[in-house]
Amino acid sequence: MDVTIINPFLNATLNVIETMAFVKAKAEKPYLKKDNVAQGDVSGIVGITGAVRGTVSITFDEVSILKIVSNMFGEEMKEINHEISDAVGELTNMISGQARQEIEKTGKILQGAIPTVVTGKNHKLISMTKGPKIAIPFKTDTGRFTVEVCLEK
Amino acid sequence: MDVTIINPFLNATLNVIETMAFVKAKAEKPYLKKDNVAQGDVSGIVGITGAVRGTVSITFDEVSILKIVSNMFGEEMKEINHEISDAVGELTNMISGQARQEIEKTGKILQGAIPTVVTGKNHKLISMTKGPKIAIPFKTDTGRFTVEVCLEK
Repeated sequence: MDVTIINPFLNATLNVIETMAFVKAKAEKPYLKKDNVAQGDVSGIVGITGAVRGTVSITFDEVSILKIVSNMFGEEMKEINHEISDAVGELTNMISGQARQEIEKTGKILQGAIPTVVTGKNHKLISMTKGPKIAIPFKTDTGRFTVEVCLEK
Repeated sequence: MDVTIINPFLNATLNVIETMAFVKAKAEKPYLKKDNVAQGDVSGIVGITGAVRGTVSITFDEVSILKIVSNMFGEEMKEINHEISDAVGELTNMISGQARQEIEKTGKILQGAIPTVVTGKNHKLISMTKGPKIAIPFKTDTGRFTVEVCLEK
């Protein structure tokens, strides 16, 4: 597992979630995925090109994203709507941007595509690569979410 | 609407679907989307960077993708499973690759990220851009699907 790629995504996620939503998340141990699938209720996805081709996704269950966005907006969010989608897009963009800046310091230049947000109860994401798929599970007081970094090789 | 970007995706889609699945699709008039959302049962998404940042997605309803993949495999597919996901990933990759080659001839070099496939009944895709979102609807004898090209500007 290439920690020079994974750690920047882990650190950027903790930092963005805390800065934007005042939610202290705890990262659990990243692991190489054997199955193929991330499953949740709302996800942000961003394609990566440059020194490495890949995709990065962040997948939330409903209770977890409602709490995070409620904190971001200072107002209780009760369902997954377009404000939640916009917030997930923004969080995805910030995490991807901060992580790429950090990775750039190691000499690997990456470009990010524009993010896509997926909503739909229990949707699944499957990354089309034979390369490594690394999941980083995060835990907060009110739920869980997972960042996945999928690389071409 | 920048036809030097849109037409290559339209042509690549017709070509890949006919070559791989022996399905003659008909493209309807591309249009600028006012709403934000593609909705379907299985989608392939690929991020684009380079001369233009963006994402390209192809979204199928169930009946339409079951017919297309049944034709690809020469065997009747009855539900959306991992073979369907793999096929959608492959179609997305081929469409994105062929379109980018065509666009390259106009001097615009684009890179493609690795594709992500989304499954989930009536999931929605929202592209996080203030730039144009162009939908190209396709019709086949057994269903419909939509290609969306979302650009940063």
